Amino acid sequence: MPTVSVIYFSGSGHTTKLAEAVHKGAASVAGVKTNLIAINGEDIVHGRYKNDEVFTKLDVSDAIIFGTPTYMGGPSAQFKAFADATGGKWFTSAWKDKIAAGFTVSMSPSGDKLSTLHYLFTLAMQHGMIWIGQPEMPLQPNGVNRLGSNSGVMAQAGQESPDIAPSEGDKLTGEILGKRVAEYALKLKK
Amino acid sequence: MPTVSVIYFSGSGHTTKLAEAVHKGAASVAGVKTNLIAINGEDIVHGRYKNDEVFTKLDVSDAIIFGTPTYMGGPSAQFKAFADATGGKWFTSAWKDKIAAGFTVSMSPSGDKLSTLHYLFTLAMQHGMIWIGQPEMPLQPNGVNRLGSNSGVMAQAGQESPDIAPSEGDKLTGEILGKRVAEYALKLKK
Amino acid sequence: MPTVSVIYFSGSGHTTKLAEAVHKGAASVAGVKTNLIAINGEDIVHGRYKNDEVFTKLDVSDAIIFGTPTYMGGPSAQFKAFADATGGKWFTSAWKDKIAAGFTVSMSPSGDKLSTLHYLFTLAMQHGMIWIGQPEMPLQPNGVNRLGSNSGVMAQAGQESPDIAPSEGDKLTGEILGKRVAEYALKLKK
Amino acid sequence: MPTVSVIYFSGSGHTTKLAEAVHKGAASVAGVKTNLIAINGEDIVHGRYKNDEVFTKLDVSDAIIFGTPTYMGGPSAQFKAFADATGGKWFTSAWKDKIAAGFTVSMSPSGDKLSTLHYLFTLAMQHGMIWIGQPEMPLQPNGVNRLGSNSGVMAQAGQESPDIAPSEGDKLTGEILGKRVAEYALKLKK
Repeated sequence: MPTVSVIYFSGSGHTTKLAEAVHKGAASVAGVKTNLIAINGEDIVHGRYKNDEVFTKLDVSDAIIFGTPTYMGGPSAQFKAFADATGGKWFTSAWKDKIAAGFTVSMSPSGDKLSTLHYLFTLAMQHGMIWIGQPEMPLQPNGVNRLGSNSGVMAQAGQESPDIAPSEGDKLTGEILGKRVAEYALKLKK
Repeated sequence: MPTVSVIYFSGSGHTTKLAEAVHKGAASVAGVKTNLIAINGEDIVHGRYKNDEVFTKLDVSDAIIFGTPTYMGGPSAQFKAFADATGGKWFTSAWKDKIAAGFTVSMSPSGDKLSTLHYLFTLAMQHGMIWIGQPEMPLQPNGVNRLGSNSGVMAQAGQESPDIAPSEGDKLTGEILGKRVAEYALKLKK
Repeated sequence: MPTVSVIYFSGSGHTTKLAEAVHKGAASVAGVKTNLIAINGEDIVHGRYKNDEVFTKLDVSDAIIFGTPTYMGGPSAQFKAFADATGGKWFTSAWKDKIAAGFTVSMSPSGDKLSTLHYLFTLAMQHGMIWIGQPEMPLQPNGVNRLGSNSGVMAQAGQESPDIAPSEGDKLTGEILGKRVAEYALKLKK
Repeated sequence: MPTVSVIYFSGSGHTTKLAEAVHKGAASVAGVKTNLIAINGEDIVHGRYKNDEVFTKLDVSDAIIFGTPTYMGGPSAQFKAFADATGGKWFTSAWKDKIAAGFTVSMSPSGDKLSTLHYLFTLAMQHGMIWIGQPEMPLQPNGVNRLGSNSGVMAQAGQESPDIAPSEGDKLTGEILGKRVAEYALKLKK
């Protein structure tokens, strides 16, 4: 049975909401196991991330979906510390042929979120992973892909409570990505 | 007297409106000459752009502001044909130390416009130019930088008439960029 | 039987050599049909590409590998004209779920080639395609991935004859990408 | 008297060597004060950077040159922690109109270093800074810009001792960038 893991950092809870939506989408696919994994700041010492349990879960995953807020035009430092810690996996091509996808949250509609998604893609490519984007047309009536992003999922949240931001449309966009990744994990596992 | 040129391609008139706003901002600065130059598809033969008059104007400009719609995730082919035609200027470092800036228009709030702005920046860097972005804070009440972009100006327009899209806020953002570029042209010319 | 198409523009023959190598890799996989398609400048009128026969071939392909030189920091205008012409396919999600990959050639070791590969990725994402990178470790003794690129294949060629540049290592890197894409086309077609 | 600060992170000493070269170039310009500032992992707690003394120096600088290794396709987490900590400066536009530039080091000739430079540019734009690239033509006989990068300076170093990598050519490229930034700081300060 293929496993899909969602690994993310959230600073104020908004990215957690989007991560949960992505995870919900993946978990909705029959015959797929899922993990929802938060990156904790406590696991970062002097800028270096270490958590063997997390890597054990990722190593046996068939798909890994990366999530982070966009801070100052790129992935949060906490996510980047996790990404740097994947260097050992890179060195042995341990994640080659796994599926990858990504999502990000920031305050503005555009807000340099594409910079973060392009980074997540670049990370996945260094690992030899297969990238799956968000294929829905933009500006749908139900809010799906209302910001216009296909490289991954973008959501918007500022100072509002995570109870109301990201919007339902943004979360639904995340859910669709999670489902899509899980379906590809099934297809490629066979 | 320093010269600021705005050179752009527009497919359906929306980018023209933004270009006019950027040009208006530049022209509002006393002591600066300006040009507003459209890239015409007729000057592109087999994918190669040629218009000596345009290059003569750009060669004597102190600042060049690049504008193009975002088509299929990047600058329009017509703008790219112009960009490729600057290869001769690149070869002689003819545009070194000129000021550069950029703007783009697409249908969605995000819509991969950052990909286009990053391209315009990359082009300017190959020429050894100085890049000036859009420094206004995002999400201002009057619509200035409502999409959240600082690398350059982003505006949104779909199938609406160019009379109503881009919005006033988007055009005002463009105007501010034009003014800023002209002020730097004055400062660096002295 | 799955079909893999390589579509590329070449200005002076170097990208043709890399395209042939990528195509050779795809064609080496049993049970896969392949196309090697050049973008001709003659099909571009006023910056717009039109060739119905090419699109018919791509529409029935399971994988499309995009190739272009890097000119002035991005894809050649001729390739971009082709990319813009895929807008009709985008509008109907006609290429959704096809596999995508990319390659590029420029004069310098780095030479902003990543800008072009990121563009090709962004284009593929707009179409809802699945991106497959080049997973080989960098700096291999036989020249495979000697430039250090995983988002796609990079090759280097300047004013030398296409008979000697790109190098054997660069072409072998392309061949590996073509083979990999064909293998995934087989796997996902089943 | 204008002040140019070079702020960088180095994991194994190679980026330090490049930072020293950039700093040397800036310091060679008469009438300019300079700072060479290392980001220390000890100042990062749970992924968040804090060092008031460093920010005091940067606040009074007229130009800030950012440097970091490229780790896993982007800036090191340690540099990103510093970047995230500039959020307070962003909020008050405190760094608006300062000059910015950047440099990075990784193992391969290309090695996704452009991803890092594009990130540094995006960060600078969020601050409303002016970006100055590396304008030298590629592939010069003395090794200047041998990798082919203009968005900023790229250098190559793997497992070799920092005594021998980056190469003299790469360091000279950095020196030229530092000098150029200092000259612009003088020009814009007047």
